[in-house]
Amino acid sequence: MTKIVECVPNFSEGRDKEKIEKIISVFEKHEKIKLINYEADTDYNRTVVTLIGEADAMVVALLDMVEIVMNEIDLNNHSGEHARMGAIDVIPFIPISGITMSECVTYVNVLAEKISDIYNIPCFMYAEAAKEEKRISLPNIRKGEFEGMKEKIKLPEWKPDYGKQEIHPTFGVIGVGARDFLVAYNIDILTTDEKKTGSFAKAIRQSSGGFQYIQAGPVFLENKGHTQVTMNILNFKKNPIYRIFETVKMEAKRYHMEVPSAEIVGLIPKDALIRSLKYYYSVDDIEFPEDITLHEIVRMSERYLKLRDFSVDKIIEYFL
Amino acid sequence: MTKIVECVPNFSEGRDKEKIEKIISVFEKHEKIKLINYEADTDYNRTVVTLIGEADAMVVALLDMVEIVMNEIDLNNHSGEHARMGAIDVIPFIPISGITMSECVTYVNVLAEKISDIYNIPCFMYAEAAKEEKRISLPNIRKGEFEGMKEKIKLPEWKPDYGKQEIHPTFGVIGVGARDFLVAYNIDILTTDEKKTGSFAKAIRQSSGGFQYIQAGPVFLENKGHTQVTMNILNFKKNPIYRIFETVKMEAKRYHMEVPSAEIVGLIPKDALIRSLKYYYSVDDIEFPEDITLHEIVRMSERYLKLRDFSVDKIIEYFL
Repeated sequence: MTKIVECVPNFSEGRDKEKIEKIISVFEKHEKIKLINYEADTDYNRTVVTLIGEADAMVVALLDMVEIVMNEIDLNNHSGEHARMGAIDVIPFIPISGITMSECVTYVNVLAEKISDIYNIPCFMYAEAAKEEKRISLPNIRKGEFEGMKEKIKLPEWKPDYGKQEIHPTFGVIGVGARDFLVAYNIDILTTDEKKTGSFAKAIRQSSGGFQYIQAGPVFLENKGHTQVTMNILNFKKNPIYRIFETVKMEAKRYHMEVPSAEIVGLIPKDALIRSLKYYYSVDDIEFPEDITLHEIVRMSERYLKLRDFSVDKIIEYFL
Repeated sequence: MTKIVECVPNFSEGRDKEKIEKIISVFEKHEKIKLINYEADTDYNRTVVTLIGEADAMVVALLDMVEIVMNEIDLNNHSGEHARMGAIDVIPFIPISGITMSECVTYVNVLAEKISDIYNIPCFMYAEAAKEEKRISLPNIRKGEFEGMKEKIKLPEWKPDYGKQEIHPTFGVIGVGARDFLVAYNIDILTTDEKKTGSFAKAIRQSSGGFQYIQAGPVFLENKGHTQVTMNILNFKKNPIYRIFETVKMEAKRYHMEVPSAEIVGLIPKDALIRSLKYYYSVDDIEFPEDITLHEIVRMSERYLKLRDFSVDKIIEYFL
């Protein structure tokens, strides 16, 4: 089975279109890598790239990216609102299909070792790839940023996982990690009452006693005239969408508020939808068709999960 | 408003009935304290006492209890399956009504200071009353038990919060703390399938990604011929009963399993029931009667929360 990962490298240039496109163009020659999109933020002066492809090919493509970024960006001349410690600041691998988290960790270790060997750029392993408790959190590693890292990296406790205890003079250092797929999910509540919508967010989010892998808050959508519970699902296996959707509907019943629809922001893996559709199929006593097509998944997600503005090109597997 | 607390001291004698009754009898003369029950366990060689009453009176009653236990129990001659570090091993205060958690913490500090001053028994503050992160967990403090505490208490990091760095030669030391009320709650599932019932427990419990203050597991009731999701609710304000009940019903729908009833083990504060009844009243569009009687609360809890074997003497306020 082909090992498919998503990779979301962030590089420190969000203003100079020519440079951005030169960097992005590096992925064109990699046939087994699909560029899903890239978003340049001028305030942040940073660009977020979303790639999907075979894990081996991803390692090769990233090495090419490091080379071109090294030629294009000098962090000594960089300023922006987003914290950064490298010209490519962070490279996370996310398992999509045919690959486990632990295999992803192996791949990013190979990648980090090559980056430090070939380009002399130190790498810190973070998230699931962290080798120490205090390196799980990327902001913890990044504290002090490019400027402070010159000294920080010399401290015994901040020795990089790969490379010398000396930053690359123009590139800095990179955070290389592996993490689960994060689903950005919003549930529409037909009310203007942001406080009550906030109470639904509190019911489900970890920080208020709710589900462990949910970050959530209320938001009022000016153009639509109603509120949403807006959230990140950090682990869709342990906190499946249907459970969140049904719990919010249950809470909203208290105030007789309608919950007519929901939306996925960005991409979602097929598996995250199937896990939830299976719940509704079982409730309706229908056998789940194991050969279900992506188009059928879309239709059923609209029906059961009430997803609006949804289409096949929001499902990661569509690009494979 | 009268400040009412529950207190659940555990003492290290569960076999000698005469001694146990002598110790328990100390509460008779305290008019503002109600002895709810006591359960002696012969394997544990330990007795759990449940008291309810005014916070000031509780402090006085506990000091009397310490004195009588000091005369009756010598830990040098004690063995049992339950870990223990004191003749009274633990004294937790639980806010019930008219008192905040922070006031409870003040009361237990007063109590611990008096115990160490008057009886020369060192006290460690735990749970909400802990003065250090690593003392929040009682088992952490108790590690090594009575026998090991002789040396452990001399270590700088295990200096007791009150008293000298030397255990009482026959009594040992006491863990004195404050915590939230713990609701022991079980939901009946009409199936013999413990695995599926286990999947409902996983959906709601903290350790598997569920609600923050829920500990839960499946159990098969031989005499009833069906399973239960059995659980502790560690914070009924943040994880109200109705939310847990409705989430389990939602999960059970998947397998078309009936969820006909639930039960409270031991006591429950009125507030925990009212918080959940209010949800169902709102769903049914009925105004909640603020002057609701305990008997009416029982009837409505049977109706909405499907509580079986429930009666007013399971509600703490019945004893006040």
